[in-house]
Amino acid sequence: MIIEVEEAQAKMVGTPAVNVYPLSNYTFGTKEPKMEKDTSVADRLARMKVNYMKEGMRTSVEAILLVQEHNHPHLLLLQIGNTFCKLPGGRLKPGENEIEGLKRKLCSKLAVNSPSFPQNWQIGECVAVWWRPNFETVMYPYCPPHITKPKECKKLFLVHLSEREYFAVPRNLKLLAVPLFELYDNVQRYGPVISTIPQQLSRFQFNMVS
Amino acid sequence: MIIEVEEAQAKMVGTPAVNVYPLSNYTFGTKEPKMEKDTSVADRLARMKVNYMKEGMRTSVEAILLVQEHNHPHLLLLQIGNTFCKLPGGRLKPGENEIEGLKRKLCSKLAVNSPSFPQNWQIGECVAVWWRPNFETVMYPYCPPHITKPKECKKLFLVHLSEREYFAVPRNLKLLAVPLFELYDNVQRYGPVISTIPQQLSRFQFNMVS
Repeated sequence: MIIEVEEAQAKMVGTPAVNVYPLSNYTFGTKEPKMEKDTSVADRLARMKVNYMKEGMRTSVEAILLVQEHNHPHLLLLQIGNTFCKLPGGRLKPGENEIEGLKRKLCSKLAVNSPSFPQNWQIGECVAVWWRPNFETVMYPYCPPHITKPKECKKLFLVHLSEREYFAVPRNLKLLAVPLFELYDNVQRYGPVISTIPQQLSRFQFNMVS
Repeated sequence: MIIEVEEAQAKMVGTPAVNVYPLSNYTFGTKEPKMEKDTSVADRLARMKVNYMKEGMRTSVEAILLVQEHNHPHLLLLQIGNTFCKLPGGRLKPGENEIEGLKRKLCSKLAVNSPSFPQNWQIGECVAVWWRPNFETVMYPYCPPHITKPKECKKLFLVHLSEREYFAVPRNLKLLAVPLFELYDNVQRYGPVISTIPQQLSRFQFNMVS
């Protein structure tokens, strides 16, 4: 009975415990390049507009993958070129389930996709939702008032890594493990979506497995 | 069986629905003033240090109370003087339960405390946790590496308001309903804790009851 109350309260206060394993537990290989579909921001927004005409609001899903070093959580980011960083993920197909779509994107971006390395992505909590009101780069963490037809909804999910994983990173990308303290308050380098992940993760209890 | 899967997934994706009622549903009265214990930031940090010596790490709890206007969520903030805004809440007594402590603070800050106006605070999800590593004003949404004895841990909880409530606001304070779009990206006016609440709330589905 007491245990039930405690469980209920643990659920209510909503500070789920998440195991985070050392970066050194994971193995990183490479695979064929995954080229960006657009070569400029203008191209990207133009393609977004064309797709919107065909399919309506774009829904994208991105993964927050965490590892630890020195007992501090680090976020896995894909770096394109020398500066631009992004979360692994991408656009859902029309009608595609968010969870299945994110698994598909993770397989395409980070998995070996060989029967000898089965990957079982554990998609966890939704951590953030961002809205793009217009065919512009700016997004907001709410759908702004008076916007009845947002152009994109982007959802970030915590993905629970297993103790050991093998990642295959497209040859044109670099996979970085960036500490939360480097992301925090660093909108210049990482943009508004990635730089506020530390605040959005603050409610979790990270269990740093060594 | 299908329903179970849907429920499990709804739970997994973690986008709980929250009812938000119009500001006009609520009634605001006044009560005796609640003076600030400190008249300056230096006084506050000095008192924090004295309390730390006696009781160890300070734990504070604060409430996120939401109302809606024009279909957009607004956060209730207490304004002291003409500029400084804070969330209702405060410091827990040593050993006090977070939920009970937050209810006690809400009663002291916002309730009529009369048998004719029973207040049943519904403390919901933990939305953010902030850490103060030193006796200084700066806080982080993680306990910084190498900090083994943080001086304060502050937790923010979503509090689910009923359809109608009567609030009694201490005469020296003003209760403001500030739209999320005003808080977002406005660290200058609201500080790092309050200005990132929109990002931390983005995962919720707000059901705007009219």
